[in-house]
Parts: sequence; C-alpha cells; structure tokens
Amino acid sequence: MSNKTYIMPAALHDAVVAAAYKKRGFTDEEAAAGARFCTLASSHGIKTHNAIKALHLDDLFGSKAGGCVPGATIEKLPSKFRAVARWNANRKLGQAVAFEAMAEAMRLADEFGCGTVAVDNAFHYLWGGGYVIDAASRGYIAYTCCTAALAEVVPFGGKFATLGTNPHSWAFPTTDAVGFPVCIDWATSVVAMGRVQQFAREGKPLPTGCGVDKDGRETTDPTKVVALMPFGQHKGYGLSLIDEILAAYVGGSLPTLRSRWKTGPKDEKHTPAFFFQCIRPDAISGDDFAQSRTQSQNVKAVIDDILGHGNAGVLLPGQPEAQAMALTKKYGGLLFTAAEIEALGEIAREAAVPFDVEKLATV
Amino acid sequence: MSNKTYIMPAALHDAVVAAAYKKRGFTDEEAAAGARFCTLASSHGIKTHNAIKALHLDDLFGSKAGGCVPGATIEKLPSKFRAVARWNANRKLGQAVAFEAMAEAMRLADEFGCGTVAVDNAFHYLWGGGYVIDAASRGYIAYTCCTAALAEVVPFGGKFATLGTNPHSWAFPTTDAVGFPVCIDWATSVVAMGRVQQFAREGKPLPTGCGVDKDGRETTDPTKVVALMPFGQHKGYGLSLIDEILAAYVGGSLPTLRSRWKTGPKDEKHTPAFFFQCIRPDAISGDDFAQSRTQSQNVKAVIDDILGHGNAGVLLPGQPEAQAMALTKKYGGLLFTAAEIEALGEIAREAAVPFDVEKLATV
Repeated sequence: MSNKTYIMPAALHDAVVAAAYKKRGFTDEEAAAGARFCTLASSHGIKTHNAIKALHLDDLFGSKAGGCVPGATIEKLPSKFRAVARWNANRKLGQAVAFEAMAEAMRLADEFGCGTVAVDNAFHYLWGGGYVIDAASRGYIAYTCCTAALAEVVPFGGKFATLGTNPHSWAFPTTDAVGFPVCIDWATSVVAMGRVQQFAREGKPLPTGCGVDKDGRETTDPTKVVALMPFGQHKGYGLSLIDEILAAYVGGSLPTLRSRWKTGPKDEKHTPAFFFQCIRPDAISGDDFAQSRTQSQNVKAVIDDILGHGNAGVLLPGQPEAQAMALTKKYGGLLFTAAEIEALGEIAREAAVPFDVEKLATV
Repeated sequence: MSNKTYIMPAALHDAVVAAAYKKRGFTDEEAAAGARFCTLASSHGIKTHNAIKALHLDDLFGSKAGGCVPGATIEKLPSKFRAVARWNANRKLGQAVAFEAMAEAMRLADEFGCGTVAVDNAFHYLWGGGYVIDAASRGYIAYTCCTAALAEVVPFGGKFATLGTNPHSWAFPTTDAVGFPVCIDWATSVVAMGRVQQFAREGKPLPTGCGVDKDGRETTDPTKVVALMPFGQHKGYGLSLIDEILAAYVGGSLPTLRSRWKTGPKDEKHTPAFFFQCIRPDAISGDDFAQSRTQSQNVKAVIDDILGHGNAGVLLPGQPEAQAMALTKKYGGLLFTAAEIEALGEIAREAAVPFDVEKLATV
C-alpha cells in the first residue's frame, strides 16, 4: 500500500459522510452534524474518531444495534433552574445532540455566566475534545464528560470491569494567548481496548499497569487482557467514577448493562449520559491582573512562565491537535493515509457518492 | 512517647484553635471559621491539614509572611452574570473565604441550578475535600480547585517546577445512597513534598516517578529531589494546568512567583486563586430512571453495580474519611496521637487556653 498522504477536500469528505449517514436513515440535519463532527476530528488529526470509526461505531452500537435512533427528537424538559438544561436525547445521533447541547451551554453562559446541559438517553458522541475545542474557539471555557459505551475498566483494587473508559475534556479560549485552545482531553483508562488489540496483533507485550486477565490479575500479555486498568491508580479510578455518578444523577443505569441491549431486565436502561458546561471568562475575572495585563495577556504570561525556566520541550495539551489543524489549513484539505482513503472510498461507493481517489492531490 | 490515641472534645479543640487564630490578630468570625475547618479535617481523619498544620502554614505563608491579612474584607464584584460570583478575597483567611464561597455557590445553585464562585487574591484554604464534603452533606454536587501555594511540580516533559501541586476536589450527595458523600480529592503530584522529606528522614528510596533532581532528571533519592512529578504523566500534568489556567482567568499571576513575596517586580501578584461550584441534583435529573427508581436509588444501584461482580474489595473515594468520621462520632471527640496532642497542648499554652492532657480520655 502507498505511503502517500492524500488530501481530501472537506466538501467532498462532508458529502461522503453525510450521504453515508442519510443512507442509514438519518435526517439531513443529523447527517450534516455527523459530517461536521468527522471534519472536526480529521482536521485536528484525530484518527481514532474519524468518519471510518464513526460509521463503524454506528454499525456496532448505533442505528443497526438499537443504541441510536435516526430522526429521533430531543425532548427538552422544563426546569425551574434557568442556568441548567436537562434533555432527553431519545437516542438521537450523539454528534448532533452534542453540538446542540454545547451551543445551548454557550447560550446559557452568555446569560448567566455559566451554562450546563445534562443529557439522558444519549448515544456515544465520539471525541469530546472536538466539542470543547469548538466552544473554546468561540471564547468559552468548556467542559464535557460522558459515560463510555461499554464497562471495560476495573475499579482500583477490584477484579472485574464495571466502569467505562469514561473520558473528560476541558478546553480554554487561549487562541489569543497561545494560538490555539489549550485542550485537556483523555479517557480514564491507561490505554484503550483498541490499543491492546493492536499490541496483540503485533505480538508485543503491553506496558505494565494497563490491563488484567479473566481473574482480575494484572498481565502484560495482550491476548489475555479482558479488562483495562484506570490511569493513576485511585486517582484515575476516581475520575472515571465521576462520569458514572454524574450519569446516574442524570438517568444512566448500571454500567455493566450499558450498550448491551440484550442483557438485563426489560425495564432497564442501556444508554450513556452526557454532561456539558461552558463558562464565560469575563464572568470569573477578578479584574485585577498584575502589571496592568488584560485577562488574555495574563493567561499568556502564566503559560509562558509554565513553559519557561528550561521547560521549552514541554507540549501544551491541545498543541498536537493544533499542529494537525495547521497542516490541514496548509494543504487545504483533510489528510488521510492510503488505507484510510481506501476505507473512505468504500463508504463513498456504498453511499453512491462519486469519489475518484486518482483525482486527489497527495503530499 | 505514648501509643495511646487521645479523645479531644470538639468544643475544647475549637476553643484552642480559635484562641490561637485570635492571638494572631484574626477576627472572631475568622477564628471560628479556622476552628470549624480544623474540626472538619480532624473529624474526617485528615492529619495533613489539622490545626497543627493550619497554624504552621500561617507561620510559613500567612499572617506572619504577608500571604494572609487578618480582618481583611471580601470584596464582591458586581456582575451581569447572575449565576457566577467573582470575589476579591483581599488575602482574608482561606478557610473563612472558602466556607463563605461554598455557601454562596449553594445559594446560587438553589436559584439557577448551578452556582459558581471565583476568588482572586486568596490565601491557601488547606483541604478542599472538607468544603465539598460539607456541601455534599447538604445535598449538592460540589467541586473546588485552587492553585497551591508553591510551584513544586515539573510539567510532563519538562525539567523545572512551574506548577503547583494544584488539587481538585469533587463530592456527591450520596449519603442516602451509600451512607456518606463520595469524595474524589487529591493533589496532581504523585506525592507531596512533605512525603519526600519523610522518606529522606527514614533513609528510604522513593518509588519511581515521584521526583526529579536539580537537573530535572528523575531520581528515587529523596535527598536529591528538588521538584515533584505529576501523577499519570500527561494526564496529571493537564489536570494541574487546569488549576493554573482557571486561576489565570480569575487573576492569579506567574506560578513561579506564587507565595514568594520577595521575588518579582513590585507590581506583581503572589496570591493563589480559588474556584467553587455547586450543582443541584434535581437540576440535572432526566426524570427517567430505570425500574422506577428514584434519583438516589438510581445512584445507589449504579454504585452497587460498580462494587459488585467480585469487586467487594474496592473502596469508594471518601470512604476512609467517612470511616474516620464514624470513629469520631463513636468516641465523642476528635482523635489525636500523643505527638499531636503535645503539639495542640503547646498551641493551647501559647493561646492561654486551659488544657490538661491528663484529663483527656484515651482509646
């Protein structure tokens, strides 16, 4: 297979992805949100959550498996608490729900300083970093977390997987200060199950502290790993627990039943839950920055101090994604490997969108 | 020294601590908050932030060092954003400010569903877990973070300490569900500098991944450690960065100048910043819990699932603190070692509060 990198125009990519979603029964609006999300991921170099993965996820857990309902309507519950919205997503496409929820969190932040949206009966929104980077690029301090599709992580001190890889994503509106939104975004397991499978395929041992075998004993043999370990021992366990407990207040049910539609009693729930929050930076300003700096100059001074003193080799979280975005802009299109382009070609064929690989420019 | 555990009545403890604060020039209200905090910490078994440490901190960084100003008044800045308060603490005693800020976050949550308080020009509030446990025991989902007094932590991939041990504390109102508030509360370094010093005193090597020497190289020799490492590599680094960047938006200045009142230009700032948030559980409820459970029953079912399936040995975060609280209640007083009681006796003598160790009951 070729080592070339292909440049795919965003418009063509969006047409392919939207058509693929529409072929699966999603509405125009859902298909557009699905395409918008995949462009956001691929333009930031996120290969774990691009169009290929998004559609594969739909096959595994989504419209073909009952986890996601094309054309579903979000029910916005009434509330006496005006700065917090609570929604029943009715298993609508996760990306469409997440974009709309983050937009509502921004609107509430504009009015109240801080806006929160809790979403029940959700379907996987893929890459949380995308939504917070998008909100931060519009000027908000943004946060999201959710319960991951499957319980794959063993609580610290335990033997059996009862927690999701439950991610957290924060981003800050630091484009003025450092050129891009600082974005802290990761799952609470040391590695993803996909990475374990990759080690198994390559016949390599895992690093220590990543996974356990069927008896709950730590193992570095990727073929024996049945569950993952949280990062940072009790600390990562606690961070994973936050997503589960928040979700439980919203409406999420037993983690071990999540996305397993054929297990558990008939009156059980199997859906993840989402949580979004945006804060206006001016709402938390003490208006007293040293050396008469503006708020943004102060943020830049603090970050410069952190990266100073011989720490020039330190990366800011969000920097690799920003570098990928710069490449996307430089080449005027989304960058894919030959294998990825082949998979996108297959998606285009299925969705009957004309797509000639030979016409794509390469790097 | 005796191996006995002493039972100190809370009223006596509070009288000693309040008198010690008043002798340092703090107001009655500040002294009462200082005592309330130390009782909260000691009743939950928190030995790193009891009265002895609180007053020692005041010596090092507080009223004797310029970091804290007895009798200072909190300035509450006007805002058009009604769900977020922004305060200038004017270096008032951290514990008094934190209790008041968390109370305001609860009040705002009652009105808007979610309440946020950002505090500039703050002084160390000691144990963040105390404030969130207190708010959670009153029914709120509570969070706080702050910038730690000193920059002691090297960013991931760096050589020089430019980050505080910057803690995060979350608690959930789970008393109905599991008997106590689940509380996730820790610093973002692997260990505290005090723990490194303890290893040095005992002549023992540190675990790997805890500290670096003067050249920024990892070392397990505690006598050579000059800076700490974040937990979980880039993930703990990111969590520490969150506190620094949030603080920078509020008004905190360069981390390497923090609490170092004699360094930097005259128009610089040296104070930490605080961030508090409370959420009403009913504000995020989707009102759709499986098997007709109530919200609290749903939270219990989720936690039971996490601790089930052979995970009986797993502790919930907040459980050790709850067990210490149960012992405090059982014995009807705060529990201290002989060395701690001796130090408290010294504090009582200085503050001229009658305190006869011989009259204390022991376990």
